[in-house]
Amino acid sequence: MEAVVLGGSSLTHMALRLAKALEVEYVKVETRKFPDGEKYVRILGDVEDRIAIVVQSMYHRPDEYLLEYFLIVDTLKDLGAKKVIGVVPYFAYARQDQRFKPGEALSLKTVTKLIENAGTDELYTVDVHRHRVEEAEFPRITRMPVHNVTAMPELAKYAIRAYDLKDPIVIGPDAEAEHWARVAAEAIGADYDYLEKKRISDREVEVRPKRLDVRGRDVLIVDDIISTGGTMVKAIDVVRREGARRVIAACTHPVLVEGALARVLEAGAEDVIATDTIPSPISRVSVVPILAKSIKERLRS
Amino acid sequence: MEAVVLGGSSLTHMALRLAKALEVEYVKVETRKFPDGEKYVRILGDVEDRIAIVVQSMYHRPDEYLLEYFLIVDTLKDLGAKKVIGVVPYFAYARQDQRFKPGEALSLKTVTKLIENAGTDELYTVDVHRHRVEEAEFPRITRMPVHNVTAMPELAKYAIRAYDLKDPIVIGPDAEAEHWARVAAEAIGADYDYLEKKRISDREVEVRPKRLDVRGRDVLIVDDIISTGGTMVKAIDVVRREGARRVIAACTHPVLVEGALARVLEAGAEDVIATDTIPSPISRVSVVPILAKSIKERLRS
Amino acid sequence: MEAVVLGGSSLTHMALRLAKALEVEYVKVETRKFPDGEKYVRILGDVEDRIAIVVQSMYHRPDEYLLEYFLIVDTLKDLGAKKVIGVVPYFAYARQDQRFKPGEALSLKTVTKLIENAGTDELYTVDVHRHRVEEAEFPRITRMPVHNVTAMPELAKYAIRAYDLKDPIVIGPDAEAEHWARVAAEAIGADYDYLEKKRISDREVEVRPKRLDVRGRDVLIVDDIISTGGTMVKAIDVVRREGARRVIAACTHPVLVEGALARVLEAGAEDVIATDTIPSPISRVSVVPILAKSIKERLRS
Amino acid sequence: MEAVVLGGSSLTHMALRLAKALEVEYVKVETRKFPDGEKYVRILGDVEDRIAIVVQSMYHRPDEYLLEYFLIVDTLKDLGAKKVIGVVPYFAYARQDQRFKPGEALSLKTVTKLIENAGTDELYTVDVHRHRVEEAEFPRITRMPVHNVTAMPELAKYAIRAYDLKDPIVIGPDAEAEHWARVAAEAIGADYDYLEKKRISDREVEVRPKRLDVRGRDVLIVDDIISTGGTMVKAIDVVRREGARRVIAACTHPVLVEGALARVLEAGAEDVIATDTIPSPISRVSVVPILAKSIKERLRS
Repeated sequence: MEAVVLGGSSLTHMALRLAKALEVEYVKVETRKFPDGEKYVRILGDVEDRIAIVVQSMYHRPDEYLLEYFLIVDTLKDLGAKKVIGVVPYFAYARQDQRFKPGEALSLKTVTKLIENAGTDELYTVDVHRHRVEEAEFPRITRMPVHNVTAMPELAKYAIRAYDLKDPIVIGPDAEAEHWARVAAEAIGADYDYLEKKRISDREVEVRPKRLDVRGRDVLIVDDIISTGGTMVKAIDVVRREGARRVIAACTHPVLVEGALARVLEAGAEDVIATDTIPSPISRVSVVPILAKSIKERLRS
Repeated sequence: MEAVVLGGSSLTHMALRLAKALEVEYVKVETRKFPDGEKYVRILGDVEDRIAIVVQSMYHRPDEYLLEYFLIVDTLKDLGAKKVIGVVPYFAYARQDQRFKPGEALSLKTVTKLIENAGTDELYTVDVHRHRVEEAEFPRITRMPVHNVTAMPELAKYAIRAYDLKDPIVIGPDAEAEHWARVAAEAIGADYDYLEKKRISDREVEVRPKRLDVRGRDVLIVDDIISTGGTMVKAIDVVRREGARRVIAACTHPVLVEGALARVLEAGAEDVIATDTIPSPISRVSVVPILAKSIKERLRS
Repeated sequence: MEAVVLGGSSLTHMALRLAKALEVEYVKVETRKFPDGEKYVRILGDVEDRIAIVVQSMYHRPDEYLLEYFLIVDTLKDLGAKKVIGVVPYFAYARQDQRFKPGEALSLKTVTKLIENAGTDELYTVDVHRHRVEEAEFPRITRMPVHNVTAMPELAKYAIRAYDLKDPIVIGPDAEAEHWARVAAEAIGADYDYLEKKRISDREVEVRPKRLDVRGRDVLIVDDIISTGGTMVKAIDVVRREGARRVIAACTHPVLVEGALARVLEAGAEDVIATDTIPSPISRVSVVPILAKSIKERLRS
Repeated sequence: MEAVVLGGSSLTHMALRLAKALEVEYVKVETRKFPDGEKYVRILGDVEDRIAIVVQSMYHRPDEYLLEYFLIVDTLKDLGAKKVIGVVPYFAYARQDQRFKPGEALSLKTVTKLIENAGTDELYTVDVHRHRVEEAEFPRITRMPVHNVTAMPELAKYAIRAYDLKDPIVIGPDAEAEHWARVAAEAIGADYDYLEKKRISDREVEVRPKRLDVRGRDVLIVDDIISTGGTMVKAIDVVRREGARRVIAACTHPVLVEGALARVLEAGAEDVIATDTIPSPISRVSVVPILAKSIKERLRS
């Protein structure tokens, strides 16, 4: 395969690991800042007539990493790269895919178009917020193929192994997360369910697992993202009140606003795990193997 | 005129002042950050079928301000704006307009294309680094008209008035700055010159004013930008050594890396002044009137 | 006078200007950051047996500037400085001087004690929030003398001159700001008043100038600080509704959270001015002369 | 034990985990920022007459975390805490323990004194840079007891287990790291050595393991810190050139300046591991158990 892998400064180590997994060359990118804050970018290797795979995530300072990405991709095209494949493990601007209020920016559309216009021919990302945007939605805003790889199976397998869970139930914290629960559960042959809000009376809302009884069971709660931790804390409260024996929390993207991790642990999760799409203290599962597998299959075909 | 002015968060007050100067409506833009660092943008006014003038500078956190700009412009077009005029008083990514080393990003090109692709129909900026890029260079990288307005006359007039300079000489710190010196000098009917490097021997280089004698004269040194202050400090050293009576330093863009201002003052400048393209402690001259004048003339025609 | 002036990285240029005003030596401080974020500090001059005056403000990144200040002061004492005088034009941690809720930090006390314990013998600051802390309050928390210099007279004089105000009234936006209005008014021989909240009925509150009629008058609204701009915007609304002819807003400390300046201008202030305790686009009045005067008087005595 | 554990915002999750390990109450701390950048701190629990253990690390924004720590500790004393035990897993200001150049700040001394003066009665930290400062050095600058706990045994045990190393040699990258290598090696019953610089001629320096032959052996390189990765990269180069079979790199504190991790992996380390004193993508080993053990022993006695 005549491909090379490059990394933006958000995830150089993941770029290196992806190159190893794909058994292709790793090309270094020099990046630094000028005094007025602008980035300097230089590609330190030969990319002419090659497929260039660029890894860059969008956490903490997404705008800085995006600009750097645009500079890298445009330069790769200038230098004669045959094709540019973007790998954006955490895709930040995915919240706003419709105008909830008049005048709002459709950031998902704008950012996706910028990524495409910068010269990206194909895009890989991981578990883009489902209740916000599906893979199926991208074709409406871009002609660039977008592949939304899921880390749920790996998270579930890791949880089973690391915490020795017995006959666990996988739970999504809300209806939108049922999808994640199902994908994770199927990978480990487990049951799954999600937490449903039921209006009991004018003033009471009950939140409970929709179908299954978690009493005395080991529970793995899965979601795409833990940001402030609010959704996860509520879910932990519910399954504990319902009598769960043990509770492990898992997510793909550990955004983890300050204090979120402590809040989730304090709510009664035995532990919390995530992937490395965003570097974090709980990034136990790497998305490199699943990205490598997905990329390999397409490059071969 | 059916135009409106909007401001990105870098310069909302300048947007407001520009709206007043142009006697058109000021439309507010709501901006805030989500916990993962991504920006939320909302246009709080009617822009349909109108010319939208968007003010955003590129200092300190240029990438964040650029992304915000892209979101604003794309939204304006979605909302039916007839035309989008970008006003970027300080254009940061202007250093790299050619590959000094192989593999370098041509950031000027990439950023200009991104600005155009985001939906900008016409761009105003102020004193883009001449030794790096001229107005004449933009047509090679973009079809979007780019207007490079100069603040040098206003800086010179302010200096004369505020410091009561007597028959001053305007000096550019190097050959590339002769242009700035000439434009500033013409506005106040003064002489101008620049500092020339002359090789005296294998080991000696002499730096002196090329044509004029500054002995006993009031000197105004002008440049496009003061960043670390290095260039300006050397120029002040030279004119003082040559016997200048008084020295005032002026620049359009006060990037002012930490300590730069003290360094320039310590070198012997009586004072340092700049415009407000970047908010700073020395931003004495506003670029609003010259931008307003330039925009008005074109909108009328 | 055997004193020297040094500046932390927040205000090196003010340190230099203060040294000139006091006609004493300016001693440079080298500062930079290690990769883990810690600061390196080095005093580049002789301070043994001298009075060292250290200028450092507390805006934007107050904690970083404070730590730097502690390192500078402790080093000065190590190097044999006879006395250390701190000059902190904007004193950030002045909000919390009592426990509004149980368990709250009394940051004013903690930070003042840290400043004292680091080796400060005497402290100058400018217009510390009056409704929060008076000069008279410091003796309760520190034995170090604290001098609270006011910039109100200079702000008022500048406003009169720059905007050619005719027989103006100086207004404080609330009862706590009456003090500022009085001090500013006395300096220019003007009337002053403040805006009073009056409960009209259970549901109505009326805000009006307590004593004076602003109809047809030029009004200068003064406060210690403009942060989000909320208080100032309300005050402008009131005096305009009451028929003021012209309105200028002024404050000592332009904290100016993003967008604040545009909000105040949009509310109808003709212009907004402030001092340079925090660098800002509206820092028209320098506190150097008043600090120099106050320090000189005490050093002489 | 009448103790409680509290966490600064750098490591709330570690505070919670330490509370669990010590089987004592976890007391929440509310922290947020005012618009001018100053921190608000509130202790949300009862600490009167109790031993308060405060966890706060010093990475990324050490000054902000330090100020927060000072505010927490001073408040704890105000609220009647009997004793305050500081737990600072990564102690940033440990570089400058002597004046290498005249006028330099002795930051280790200044920061330690500030920590003591804020009200800390006893301090725990982990693997403070040995070539810079030993536990034995603290008594010269503070009367507060300082306990320097080592994570080397846990790192070594984890490496053996996770990578199935066969009869490994533990190597320190330089003479100063021999200590770390010895402590790590003893924990797993392995040989250890360090890399020695030998001057071969005027122009050549040879770097080699001092005593042992690494040919065909599994090597674990250990150091206290990986910052830019330079030292570690050189060490990996040497042991690979000397014929090591496998190389794993380990450190206590993963400061990891941008790109450092990729550099170390690219140099040929099979993997890199670290502790969680600084959250990082390679924080595989928690220091909670060793801190808990050390604190428990002393609290009991």
